[in-house]
Amino acid sequence: MSRKTLKLAIIGGGSSYTPELIEGVLKRRDDLPVSEIHLVDIEEGEDKLYVIQTLAQRMIDKVGADITITANFDRREAISGADFVMTQFRVGGLKARANDERIPLKYNVIGQETTGAGGFAKALRTIPVILDICRDIEELAPEAWMLNFTNPAGLVTEAVNKHTNVKSIGLCNVPVSMQMMIADMMACELKDLQLEFAGLNHLVWVHKAWLDGKNITAEVLAKVGDGANFSMKNIFEEPWDPDFLRALAAIPCPYHRYFYQTDAMLEEEKQSAIDKGTRAEQVMLTEQALFDLYRDENLNEKPKELEERGGAYYSDASLNLVDAIYNNRNTIHVVNVPNNGAINTLPLDAVIECSSVIGSWGAKPVTVEELSPAVNGLLQQVKAYEQLTIDAAVLGDYDKALMALSSHPLVPDIRKAKSILDDILRVNAAYLPQFKVSVP
Amino acid sequence: MSRKTLKLAIIGGGSSYTPELIEGVLKRRDDLPVSEIHLVDIEEGEDKLYVIQTLAQRMIDKVGADITITANFDRREAISGADFVMTQFRVGGLKARANDERIPLKYNVIGQETTGAGGFAKALRTIPVILDICRDIEELAPEAWMLNFTNPAGLVTEAVNKHTNVKSIGLCNVPVSMQMMIADMMACELKDLQLEFAGLNHLVWVHKAWLDGKNITAEVLAKVGDGANFSMKNIFEEPWDPDFLRALAAIPCPYHRYFYQTDAMLEEEKQSAIDKGTRAEQVMLTEQALFDLYRDENLNEKPKELEERGGAYYSDASLNLVDAIYNNRNTIHVVNVPNNGAINTLPLDAVIECSSVIGSWGAKPVTVEELSPAVNGLLQQVKAYEQLTIDAAVLGDYDKALMALSSHPLVPDIRKAKSILDDILRVNAAYLPQFKVSVP
Amino acid sequence: MSRKTLKLAIIGGGSSYTPELIEGVLKRRDDLPVSEIHLVDIEEGEDKLYVIQTLAQRMIDKVGADITITANFDRREAISGADFVMTQFRVGGLKARANDERIPLKYNVIGQETTGAGGFAKALRTIPVILDICRDIEELAPEAWMLNFTNPAGLVTEAVNKHTNVKSIGLCNVPVSMQMMIADMMACELKDLQLEFAGLNHLVWVHKAWLDGKNITAEVLAKVGDGANFSMKNIFEEPWDPDFLRALAAIPCPYHRYFYQTDAMLEEEKQSAIDKGTRAEQVMLTEQALFDLYRDENLNEKPKELEERGGAYYSDASLNLVDAIYNNRNTIHVVNVPNNGAINTLPLDAVIECSSVIGSWGAKPVTVEELSPAVNGLLQQVKAYEQLTIDAAVLGDYDKALMALSSHPLVPDIRKAKSILDDILRVNAAYLPQFKVSVP
Amino acid sequence: MSRKTLKLAIIGGGSSYTPELIEGVLKRRDDLPVSEIHLVDIEEGEDKLYVIQTLAQRMIDKVGADITITANFDRREAISGADFVMTQFRVGGLKARANDERIPLKYNVIGQETTGAGGFAKALRTIPVILDICRDIEELAPEAWMLNFTNPAGLVTEAVNKHTNVKSIGLCNVPVSMQMMIADMMACELKDLQLEFAGLNHLVWVHKAWLDGKNITAEVLAKVGDGANFSMKNIFEEPWDPDFLRALAAIPCPYHRYFYQTDAMLEEEKQSAIDKGTRAEQVMLTEQALFDLYRDENLNEKPKELEERGGAYYSDASLNLVDAIYNNRNTIHVVNVPNNGAINTLPLDAVIECSSVIGSWGAKPVTVEELSPAVNGLLQQVKAYEQLTIDAAVLGDYDKALMALSSHPLVPDIRKAKSILDDILRVNAAYLPQFKVSVP
Repeated sequence: MSRKTLKLAIIGGGSSYTPELIEGVLKRRDDLPVSEIHLVDIEEGEDKLYVIQTLAQRMIDKVGADITITANFDRREAISGADFVMTQFRVGGLKARANDERIPLKYNVIGQETTGAGGFAKALRTIPVILDICRDIEELAPEAWMLNFTNPAGLVTEAVNKHTNVKSIGLCNVPVSMQMMIADMMACELKDLQLEFAGLNHLVWVHKAWLDGKNITAEVLAKVGDGANFSMKNIFEEPWDPDFLRALAAIPCPYHRYFYQTDAMLEEEKQSAIDKGTRAEQVMLTEQALFDLYRDENLNEKPKELEERGGAYYSDASLNLVDAIYNNRNTIHVVNVPNNGAINTLPLDAVIECSSVIGSWGAKPVTVEELSPAVNGLLQQVKAYEQLTIDAAVLGDYDKALMALSSHPLVPDIRKAKSILDDILRVNAAYLPQFKVSVP
Repeated sequence: MSRKTLKLAIIGGGSSYTPELIEGVLKRRDDLPVSEIHLVDIEEGEDKLYVIQTLAQRMIDKVGADITITANFDRREAISGADFVMTQFRVGGLKARANDERIPLKYNVIGQETTGAGGFAKALRTIPVILDICRDIEELAPEAWMLNFTNPAGLVTEAVNKHTNVKSIGLCNVPVSMQMMIADMMACELKDLQLEFAGLNHLVWVHKAWLDGKNITAEVLAKVGDGANFSMKNIFEEPWDPDFLRALAAIPCPYHRYFYQTDAMLEEEKQSAIDKGTRAEQVMLTEQALFDLYRDENLNEKPKELEERGGAYYSDASLNLVDAIYNNRNTIHVVNVPNNGAINTLPLDAVIECSSVIGSWGAKPVTVEELSPAVNGLLQQVKAYEQLTIDAAVLGDYDKALMALSSHPLVPDIRKAKSILDDILRVNAAYLPQFKVSVP
Repeated sequence: MSRKTLKLAIIGGGSSYTPELIEGVLKRRDDLPVSEIHLVDIEEGEDKLYVIQTLAQRMIDKVGADITITANFDRREAISGADFVMTQFRVGGLKARANDERIPLKYNVIGQETTGAGGFAKALRTIPVILDICRDIEELAPEAWMLNFTNPAGLVTEAVNKHTNVKSIGLCNVPVSMQMMIADMMACELKDLQLEFAGLNHLVWVHKAWLDGKNITAEVLAKVGDGANFSMKNIFEEPWDPDFLRALAAIPCPYHRYFYQTDAMLEEEKQSAIDKGTRAEQVMLTEQALFDLYRDENLNEKPKELEERGGAYYSDASLNLVDAIYNNRNTIHVVNVPNNGAINTLPLDAVIECSSVIGSWGAKPVTVEELSPAVNGLLQQVKAYEQLTIDAAVLGDYDKALMALSSHPLVPDIRKAKSILDDILRVNAAYLPQFKVSVP
Repeated sequence: MSRKTLKLAIIGGGSSYTPELIEGVLKRRDDLPVSEIHLVDIEEGEDKLYVIQTLAQRMIDKVGADITITANFDRREAISGADFVMTQFRVGGLKARANDERIPLKYNVIGQETTGAGGFAKALRTIPVILDICRDIEELAPEAWMLNFTNPAGLVTEAVNKHTNVKSIGLCNVPVSMQMMIADMMACELKDLQLEFAGLNHLVWVHKAWLDGKNITAEVLAKVGDGANFSMKNIFEEPWDPDFLRALAAIPCPYHRYFYQTDAMLEEEKQSAIDKGTRAEQVMLTEQALFDLYRDENLNEKPKELEERGGAYYSDASLNLVDAIYNNRNTIHVVNVPNNGAINTLPLDAVIECSSVIGSWGAKPVTVEELSPAVNGLLQQVKAYEQLTIDAAVLGDYDKALMALSSHPLVPDIRKAKSILDDILRVNAAYLPQFKVSVP
């Protein structure tokens, strides 16, 4: 590509993950002519934003890169003229997340913050904010690519695609982690492994795996059933039943445990909330510790403690996307994109998580062989929940919200759906102005 | 149609429902030239078959109809040359049903005999038998129409359509009952009511209702939410939440309670099993009483007690089909037929329950407007369960069976699915020769 | 239905067909409480409108019906409060039609006024006018049903469905005529015949035919191949090749000759234009003769000469629709409606001509078995032409218009397409204000 | 990949193209451990096979490669244990091709050997032979990839996919040539160009083109309309109408001229046949000249005259595929593969020509944005022709063959279709044993 300079805007720049992004940019200086990084956050996060900014500056200075770091609260300035906009914010912060996780537990329902009923609350808060950001991008950087890390990433990307003209790709570290773990299991190099990923965010399967041209799907499933490491830092590692995996004949992602092993996962979530607080409450402590490290004026690189935070590979995944788009690499990444026929049982405009070709055309999903009925049934049910949640979030529509939660496979009864919904609307009232109804 | 005489073969002729069928034939003598009715059953049912045969003969004699009644165990003789074959048998009888209902309850899962995990066991037993019957029809009466009442009627009809060349239509009394109850609510005549039915057997919705050309869907939902009678004899009448019905915006069938109000229905099923036995155990008593009535040599008509048995309208529904096919009426009935695009999110060969045009071409479903995501999500999930169950039943495949139960929305965890499956295979071993695995 | 009185608005009331409609209304007085018929036309048609009005009045007086006839140029008054709006107008009159037929012939291309390139010109003129009428209906009679006879009826109905909220059904006399002719061939009663119609307007096939439950498709095709009468008054009856019909295995409509026997039909059209003028020029004479009859003050019924005009059964077809909707008859008629999955290879919102259930819900198409590739290929190509023509007519877009004609199977080369398009735009400039481009 | 040695089997090894393949293998010795090349042909081609074998041996010797060349008539020996089977044969040779081109011209129909009616005859001859080859591959090299160059490549690959279990990919040099020509026009490097290819073989469009992330589709179309070189050696370069290209809004392939500019192409084909013989007759001379060169014992490399033969890039295209599969490159190539949802208006098992990801999983097509109606209409019509041709070739079914030709957009009338078909069957009788009918 005819070289020019690149500007990155990081929405939620005060996040503890930002040092990883900075490191990623610095590692790719030969391929990506980044000249400006604009970190933007909300005023409540002023202190954290400042800590991140100064650490980032030290990291840049260390390698002598010619990159300007800006950090402030002016989102429009950040977006204006950006080539890539990265979103990694959390509406309501970890406190809101703690509520998301606790409310469903009251009703014996999994609260998990992306895939459980907690993710529903998070979506209602997040979607209006991201659509607002998109209005700015449409006006101030219409050619920019938005790379969205904000969870629930599939839902949020679908909302952006259906309601704005912004060019966007949703991103998650689960597929990359699965690739790494399968390569570990098979003791092979990543490049020799071929994996057919398709599903939804946090509900993605590897439908078929090949090594040196040989179908190794059953072999991988046997290893997972036999206890091979196949989980993420932030998910309880309930063992898989080998018979079930053989019958499924597709490799589930770690989050599938919530759907397939609901009883055990709920038990663990309840016990864990009692023993050490919900996951949000645990993360608050980790964050505290990380920022303490970041404040150290001698620190001028990403501390290794960050990798234990749970978001491993996020930065590599996202900067590899920037590289693939900017340099028209046509490499394969697993991202969240409009389906467009790749999974032929879902609507064309449904956002799916799928192996995609990334180049100057953005992301184009690769077609997927016909799914088994078991995979398709769950996929359809969760996509129905997602569609309804997007409608509810955009319209502030109580009925759509009720149908969304009633359609969620982890919410087993409409009475519980209604109770959880009413609690969510009450507790999050400050973040949900789109809902006009007053809940008693 | 150029008149000829008609032969009906009734498989499971010793059923307590048969007198209703006989009554239906006698009522339609002007339109249907039935000259022969062949009741066939298995040897274990010899006594009941004889009781039914003699009652039927008395009913025929009373009106002086020119109809021959035959009753024996020779299924091939019954089918040979038949114009219509009606199937209403129960493999394993009410004892097997009692097991179907009790096993899942052990694991806190709804056992219900069609739509619950009990229906899964019933399907495994029934499908091989009905495919056997179809082989006979293909050979001995290839032009005959099979009208299938045997539950789970949707699943069974799909198995027949996918694995045989028999012309078949599946039939249930739920849609007719819903029409009657809605007409009652609206205090109108049936013929002025227009109802768009579509879904699966025991999972059918009225997506839109009109009276005198006016859309009355919301009005009907309000009445149902307000407590109007909208249930079947054999389903516990848990009240509906009016907010949920308004949000659903489609009229659910009585069996939808199992999916939407799972907690309450499970509680009731458990309590009822303790208080008065499972539904199968209650029906055994009703059957006993009916056969005592049937034995009365003075009885020469269908006793009104039969209507309380739960299968109201079955006979009318089925003989109206015979009439519509034979006389090319092109009237609209709600039956189980291959989808063929009517519900555009399901495969063409999936059997659905849908408003259909019945004439000499058989049944052709009427197209349905696009379904809401909430309706589509549940529909897809249940259809996935059905497809897997058919495969499991036909192939005797343990893995398919495990995936079928794991995909069932009322079975919330794969561990429970596996335990229930193993119990079902063990208890039903005599009826499931197609399963080669020995379960411990 | 709770009886009330009905108002019919006839747009293009001065048409020579109107007496047939009046007769249809009078024949159905027991079933349809029509109390008002409002004939509306444009000022250029004042004389014809007056002739029709007075004839209609005499017809009403003869049977003593209590129906008010109004006739004037006030379209909004006609539509206001109407229950049914019938459209049967011709923008530009027969003179424009003569141009439509002659322009393509200059380039050796079939000009035919609905299915040939002539129909394209007619669509460009007609669609903006019908959308205007629909705006009035949306405002003044939002619950009215529009029954559209205006050709090309499929295209026009699709434009109405995509661009307005009017409840509309498109209607053509070809399917009824085919039913009549097949019943004649088989020497049977209409009610014993079962025909699976599906396709597009003037491109409809009977995919399967049954008599007394027996598949007679091959038999009908053999009779047609053997020369049985199977044409319309206004189409040259080029004989069909029996081998081709057998291979097609579906019964084509008379207009299919243009697509399958293009050479012969073009030759005939060219010769006929020389010998006796184009079809439009012939119809001008017939019309003249009809109006001479209508002026006779002693005439108080539909003269039998009208039937020879070519539009036989139109009135019966349309008033049967009114009856079926008003009285919720749920009878089967072949009409133009949104596909909605009936033909599963076409988009849901494509308008097709299909056997449909007509009742108080309007028209719902009955699903169609999978089409053969040969049928599907032609169908898709013509539907592509239709979609592009609608876009061109609505947007006044030259490029869409060029692609429409280039996609028409009877226009074999883009150079011809462009020449014909430019001629059409030039000659019809007065009727095509939506096209901003000035053609040289 | 764990290195092993590779065996290539070349069916039709005596082709004049083979030296290019040999050159391609030799160029890639670092990436592809080819140790054996088996050339196989039929006995009639003995002389040519020997000439090729000895030239190939000289080429190998020149670079000192460790590759064994075998050449004989034993197809099963060639296939046995092969890793890649390449097919490039021509049933009936150039004489049959000359007939294919001349017969349609008699009826004023384009005869072109792939896309015209000539391609239909070629398909009937070729498909039974390739299915025979596949039976051998299934038995003797079930894991081998078949790379099919044999025309009509799309049709042939679809036949293989529908009727065998062989892993196959169809290949054509048109897409590569289009890439080269567009890069030339834009004066850019290939790697900076991004092209969305999709369609059928010899009917493929670039739906969108990007350079450095900028959409340049309109710019490319303007250059083509302005006369930029955009043709293949073997197609007459009729200029494109710039208005048409702008309206089409997709970049057509050179073969599209036959469909869009039918009149001019037919004229040229007729004139050319008179002036210098059909294309087959011209190629016979070129071939003669090439083999004269090949016989030169001093020649030990591919002579540059071969590039003028018309099949430029074929060898690079095919060996790049071998490399991508063997080394799991996951690079993008435009090949013929089962659609699988990429073009969502075509069946899943239709073979399309599409940008695909090539790796150890074979070829997976990348999804395509929704096609415009004009593109979709033509695509559907040609695919219908292809489906029917495959059925006709496999079944030897006259009716399917008649419907295939009647569905071909370049055959404008069923009478011509029938005459051409009858001539084809008569002239090719020796090659079409599957057709039982005797044509008069």
